[in-house]
Amino acid sequence: MSVLHNEIYEQPSAIKNAIEQNQVAIAALVAAIRRKEVRYVVLAARGTSDNAAIYAKYLFQIVCGIPVALAAPAVHTLFDAVVNYKDALVIGISQSGAGEDINEVVTQAKRSGALTAAITNTADSALAGIADHVLHCDAGVEKAVAATKTYTSTLAIIAALAAAWSGDSALGEKLARVDAVAQAALQVEERVRVLAQTLIHAERLLTVARGLHLATAIEAALKIAETTSSPTQSFSSADLLHGPIASVAVRTPCLLFLPRGETAQVMNQVGEKLQDRGARVLRFAFDAEPDSASCVPLTDPGTELLSPIVDILPAQLLAYHVTVARGLDPDNPLGLSKVTITR
Amino acid sequence: MSVLHNEIYEQPSAIKNAIEQNQVAIAALVAAIRRKEVRYVVLAARGTSDNAAIYAKYLFQIVCGIPVALAAPAVHTLFDAVVNYKDALVIGISQSGAGEDINEVVTQAKRSGALTAAITNTADSALAGIADHVLHCDAGVEKAVAATKTYTSTLAIIAALAAAWSGDSALGEKLARVDAVAQAALQVEERVRVLAQTLIHAERLLTVARGLHLATAIEAALKIAETTSSPTQSFSSADLLHGPIASVAVRTPCLLFLPRGETAQVMNQVGEKLQDRGARVLRFAFDAEPDSASCVPLTDPGTELLSPIVDILPAQLLAYHVTVARGLDPDNPLGLSKVTITR
Repeated sequence: MSVLHNEIYEQPSAIKNAIEQNQVAIAALVAAIRRKEVRYVVLAARGTSDNAAIYAKYLFQIVCGIPVALAAPAVHTLFDAVVNYKDALVIGISQSGAGEDINEVVTQAKRSGALTAAITNTADSALAGIADHVLHCDAGVEKAVAATKTYTSTLAIIAALAAAWSGDSALGEKLARVDAVAQAALQVEERVRVLAQTLIHAERLLTVARGLHLATAIEAALKIAETTSSPTQSFSSADLLHGPIASVAVRTPCLLFLPRGETAQVMNQVGEKLQDRGARVLRFAFDAEPDSASCVPLTDPGTELLSPIVDILPAQLLAYHVTVARGLDPDNPLGLSKVTITR
Repeated sequence: MSVLHNEIYEQPSAIKNAIEQNQVAIAALVAAIRRKEVRYVVLAARGTSDNAAIYAKYLFQIVCGIPVALAAPAVHTLFDAVVNYKDALVIGISQSGAGEDINEVVTQAKRSGALTAAITNTADSALAGIADHVLHCDAGVEKAVAATKTYTSTLAIIAALAAAWSGDSALGEKLARVDAVAQAALQVEERVRVLAQTLIHAERLLTVARGLHLATAIEAALKIAETTSSPTQSFSSADLLHGPIASVAVRTPCLLFLPRGETAQVMNQVGEKLQDRGARVLRFAFDAEPDSASCVPLTDPGTELLSPIVDILPAQLLAYHVTVARGLDPDNPLGLSKVTITR
């Protein structure tokens, strides 16, 4: 088995560990948030970590009622902007903690008086050294180039922070059991493997989700692009209808995420529109038909607020199986390295 | 000639008019911003207007030093979030002013005590009725489904607001002359038409830019997708290197935007990496070689802060000419309508 496959299966325990290991650090961060009267949150991240930030963007707004911005690091690294972050909680997310541009945002934020935090898998990284508070994924070294366990352990930390910050104890209790749901989510592997065989010759793949679940669609598309070297593209169902649907050709595989919850209705409407255009609609869905070759069942963590932590797992398995089915090496994507430094 | 082509050519006068007509309204908005001590900005938009918001996200941070968030309307419309926007300036951007989700964000923001504004081409729209301040594009009715003059007049209003808010009079003076630069930008049409012939059979096209110019890449990709019905995808050069470059196949046309300024160096590096992978690199560049069939010259508005207002024009012409070269109707993209309502 490949390193990537092993790391996909390490996720239930990595999620459980990340939640348990960060209880004290999260309590300290929440106390600091309350002392400071934080008015808004800024998240700085790249790549897979940026997809985790998209989950946080939705979750913090829904659960904590706080506005959230995604940083644009280039304003500092290329345009020398001096931004006043003094009322913000600024969180840098990076598994390596080595991204110069992310570290520059957190440094600037700290200088202008923001409360700063890091979510990282490298406790002695530059990022951890800069931030006031460090939330450590503690997922062990991630050897595969395509990130998996650092993504889901980051999501788990984000959910734990949202639960503690908002005082939503029901959310916290469901989160404490989410590792078992993640374990159950991996049991669809054989259905995913069969589906992957039908995508061997797909030249392009779209992923679609809405709202809170957008992170899942974007991260799924990134995983598939990284490992299979095929073009993928992800859309919010709302944005897809604002133009890009015009470019969806007949037979294009479109992977829709339909977890149990508020987005199912609009997602089903988008599925119908895509089918009307002749696209091949695949569904990762809570209510997947048992025998359909184009559906894979999603697990239910008891609240859709936590669905992104578990829904990505079958998509990671899909990326793995399409890659293997094409005779490629899932551990060594063409032309990629584990740490990407951008200015 | 098509409606789309006519509207592309209306832009220099639409830009000039939008700047002139909004001087009083912008002065009033800036006075309100100062009174309120706005701490951050939230922008709510969809489709082409969302691409204008991306320009604003960079420009307000660089010029005004204020953090900027892009709203996630679904947190309100699907997840019933109650977000506290009281220290924010919240701007809804919509040419029609009819998007229910955008209007919901502005309504919620107003309720929680935010200062609100609208940028719209429909002075009597629902959005204009909700917002405290209305900045009217006044670009005349836009008949083509693919938005052009409402995009650039919105960018011009954003730049005028940034100049007035920051008190950057040099920026304001250059903005007052940007319509002439836009006029000059249209003079590359014949070179664009020739380039378009080489893209008739392209199955996929990527656009790439960095930082402030990302809006140009994203909007160019959207225009080409809308009118030609071909898949396009846009990337920040930084994000492209974080994984998706693995999926760029040999001969894929990649359109790079290289205006004069801070991003040219990193963009040239990305161009080399794409060429190493065998991609077909096309450049819209300030320093385009005079006779190269793969380059189109960009005009220089005297500061790259204004480049996005003029750099999109040759890209709109490219979308038009690829569409015509393929025998398609640029005024009636397949399966799209002018106003898209999302919940």
